[in-house]
Amino acid sequence: MSEVPSSGLQLRSLVTKAGKLELSLEEVENPPLGDNDVLVRVEASPINPSDLGLLLGMADISTATQGGSADLPTLSADIPESMLKYMAGRLDESMPVGNEGGGVVIAAGGSADAQALMGKTVGVLGGAMYSQYRVLNVNQCLAMHDGVTPAQSASCFVNPLTALGMVETMRLEGYSALIHTAAASNLGQMLQKICLADDVQLINIVRKPEQAALMRDIGAQYVCDSSEASFTQDLAYAIAATGAYMAFDATGGGELAGQILSAMEVAANATAAEYSRYGSTQDKQVYIYGGLDRSPTVLRRSFGMAWNLGGWLLTPFLQKIGREKAQALRQRVADEINTTFASHYVREVSLRETLQLDVAQAYAQQATGQKYLINPST
Amino acid sequence: MSEVPSSGLQLRSLVTKAGKLELSLEEVENPPLGDNDVLVRVEASPINPSDLGLLLGMADISTATQGGSADLPTLSADIPESMLKYMAGRLDESMPVGNEGGGVVIAAGGSADAQALMGKTVGVLGGAMYSQYRVLNVNQCLAMHDGVTPAQSASCFVNPLTALGMVETMRLEGYSALIHTAAASNLGQMLQKICLADDVQLINIVRKPEQAALMRDIGAQYVCDSSEASFTQDLAYAIAATGAYMAFDATGGGELAGQILSAMEVAANATAAEYSRYGSTQDKQVYIYGGLDRSPTVLRRSFGMAWNLGGWLLTPFLQKIGREKAQALRQRVADEINTTFASHYVREVSLRETLQLDVAQAYAQQATGQKYLINPST
Repeated sequence: MSEVPSSGLQLRSLVTKAGKLELSLEEVENPPLGDNDVLVRVEASPINPSDLGLLLGMADISTATQGGSADLPTLSADIPESMLKYMAGRLDESMPVGNEGGGVVIAAGGSADAQALMGKTVGVLGGAMYSQYRVLNVNQCLAMHDGVTPAQSASCFVNPLTALGMVETMRLEGYSALIHTAAASNLGQMLQKICLADDVQLINIVRKPEQAALMRDIGAQYVCDSSEASFTQDLAYAIAATGAYMAFDATGGGELAGQILSAMEVAANATAAEYSRYGSTQDKQVYIYGGLDRSPTVLRRSFGMAWNLGGWLLTPFLQKIGREKAQALRQRVADEINTTFASHYVREVSLRETLQLDVAQAYAQQATGQKYLINPST
Repeated sequence: MSEVPSSGLQLRSLVTKAGKLELSLEEVENPPLGDNDVLVRVEASPINPSDLGLLLGMADISTATQGGSADLPTLSADIPESMLKYMAGRLDESMPVGNEGGGVVIAAGGSADAQALMGKTVGVLGGAMYSQYRVLNVNQCLAMHDGVTPAQSASCFVNPLTALGMVETMRLEGYSALIHTAAASNLGQMLQKICLADDVQLINIVRKPEQAALMRDIGAQYVCDSSEASFTQDLAYAIAATGAYMAFDATGGGELAGQILSAMEVAANATAAEYSRYGSTQDKQVYIYGGLDRSPTVLRRSFGMAWNLGGWLLTPFLQKIGREKAQALRQRVADEINTTFASHYVREVSLRETLQLDVAQAYAQQATGQKYLINPST
């Protein structure tokens, strides 16, 4: 800790006008520390679904080829021409990647807040986290309790705050129970634990019997398996039982969002006193917060007129609730990082391994709950 | 006016469990007048798109057959089996039809409010308006200025308040300009006139060159024709020029709602300073308020995460803004019924003609702006 490094390797993603994705490692200088900054040695950063879009630029990873040297490998792949127009804003610009991570503070600016973090393990939300070192403002760091490792703190922002944000959004918008899709994910398990702790009823939509079993093991009362023939009926019953008229959907594409709205309408009409030509008056809200299914969203509008479907993102949500409330959510994450908010990874890889052909092909297709963790310090 | 009739004919729509639609005329008693009630002789009631669903019960009108007598005709048609499940709430129940209409008050209860309406022409929102007489609460009546006819007042609720409601919703939700689809409709023309009067910029989406010409004739500055190859580009330019990030869509089905959101995103990104992996941060709202296109809504989600699509209905909107504000909107309608809120009809028919085969087949397929008017007093 006596020698402060002046530079380190950083993973870069480039999408060219010619339709090529190029991943590489670059040596970048650490900028000078401001008063309120710290230098973090990054030791863990997850590959979240939300990172994959920026990392791989919608490339067809089956066309990927290896290049560069053993020390500084590169990876190239073709991007389907139809996808290129969605990346107009990043063409020919080499971009760093990685929303969040965990590491150790090895140098600190002069302010008391910065000095207080010296030597601490921190979870950070900083962008460019697939880097060996990062200079960050203290506000981007969440100090962990003693004994927590960087790997344990690597996912302390995106998933925990998203899961907490769903429950807060439910309260803010006057709903009293929730539906969640892709529910067996790391995030989904966190959400179930929060709902158990906060006494909120949650309907978990999963796609496989083993995911249903996993959710029941951690205490889920309502699990609907979309692979069952009785799925939409099961879902309507669960909604009628819980009053869950707000859903968060990680998939986005296909018919699932519409199926949820239809099941809500069936549940609402099951208790309605008289026929309404415009459908039930029960407000119904589905938020799409991910895009696991890239296909178009298809809505068979058999759910009346009192419905809403929209996008949901963590950052605008945190801005909306304000700094104090957001800080309370962050502190809860730090306090429960190894229980409610524990994350699991299928594999830990180095920065160089991240650019290896077989590794990239594996994380490009990572299934729900099969997350990779990058350790840039190895 | 000396003799108050005790009963009159009423149009009834019945959907049977066996999948038949049956239209008929029934003689119904006028209930006794309460203190705050009036008896209205109905002389005009439009067939709005929102009436057609209840009237025809999704029947295949090409299968319709005539029955009954010349005096009391009936009309029957088959309902496709796949549609029957959406009408579970009304099966085997004979239902009256007709949201709104215009007529003359021919008897009044004892209250001052009721007595004040005696002899007046009123526009009314009462349901069951395809009837010769209706007993209604004074709150359901909007008194017209002297010289206004029942036909002129027949459409003074649904379309005018919906058009005004769109502009109010825009203000309430912090938007500053609007997009409207099926814009050459009666309602669309009203909306354009309101926007001109209130200095609100409006983008009119139409489907034919002659509709574009019609809208320009009444002063529209922005008209986008969805039959043009350049439609989505034209729309994006118009949005960039006006800042119209709220749309009201009468069609509901197909790709139009998604095209609008995509054009909004293109316009928002055209002025954005840097690439955002989650799309623009500009909030984008599309409300579906009709279902001219029954096919599924298809969203190709290329419009970031700051978007919302929902149903919009007049009644909950009026409840939300409260009685005082709603009354102000109603008074504006009465004051401008022959200018801003003038309606046009292709044909006036009697109650009996409404049940005639060729007439029913015509209004079942009525095009945008080709509205029928029923006169139950003939």
